[in-house]
Amino acid sequence: MVLSGIWKRHEDSKDLPPNLIISHEKTIPPEDVQEICASVGWSRREPMLIARALGNSLAVVSAWDGPLMVGFARATGDKVFNATIWDVVVRPPYQRRGIGLLVMRELLKELDTFEIPLVTLYADPGTDGFYKRFGFLTDPSGVRGMFRERM
Amino acid sequence: MVLSGIWKRHEDSKDLPPNLIISHEKTIPPEDVQEICASVGWSRREPMLIARALGNSLAVVSAWDGPLMVGFARATGDKVFNATIWDVVVRPPYQRRGIGLLVMRELLKELDTFEIPLVTLYADPGTDGFYKRFGFLTDPSGVRGMFRERM
Repeated sequence: MVLSGIWKRHEDSKDLPPNLIISHEKTIPPEDVQEICASVGWSRREPMLIARALGNSLAVVSAWDGPLMVGFARATGDKVFNATIWDVVVRPPYQRRGIGLLVMRELLKELDTFEIPLVTLYADPGTDGFYKRFGFLTDPSGVRGMFRERM
Repeated sequence: MVLSGIWKRHEDSKDLPPNLIISHEKTIPPEDVQEICASVGWSRREPMLIARALGNSLAVVSAWDGPLMVGFARATGDKVFNATIWDVVVRPPYQRRGIGLLVMRELLKELDTFEIPLVTLYADPGTDGFYKRFGFLTDPSGVRGMFRERM
């Protein structure tokens, strides 16, 4: 567990839980990741698979209010040229309090230590304004995100 | 080096170089990757960084006509839930001969061995028709690709 002080400088942080803890550990309990994802209606993934995916991720950030995970995000990538951010989630009762901003800042800070020049993500409808705050652009130069789900 | 026979079944393959070799090795010479990327006008990345990125990739596919790399693609990801395809390139004199299709098929075949449910990519303008042939969809459900370049 790493307690980060960066959020204290941001005005968005005024509603943050007073004892919020930020962790950059990949070995967090996968059941907690499963549960926070389910709290926003995402499908429940198997804890064993979640643990493996966290281990293979480039960076994992979680925010905790006591024993409760209240925010989460992770990134995959080649650790050199690019990274992709996945699973940015804040537990509903804790939303609109600056936790998402904090989790994203911590994740980008960790990716920046690798000096990765390009960070990408896929924004759900209505969330692109949130990501624009971090400098993300939608479809720059006409580049389009594409998806293939396995049959 | 792995010689794959899958392309023999596709009509797109009729113009393929007769002795084309497909490799799934990550330890290919990074100078060759640098050079094929430069052949389509992409910026020259340092071989040492390329080698590290290949090692950290989930899958790497290259196509060879003798000693010449004529096609390339790679994917990053968590080996469980998602993968992202990068750097799909065919050397200009070898374009429109089915090499890009073959490289993509081989890469997707390797990703499918991990049973990864979601494969994504970022398509340059005018290339989405190519990727649709493999089942990729543009911005499904309004999800948008976003990019952040490091300052």
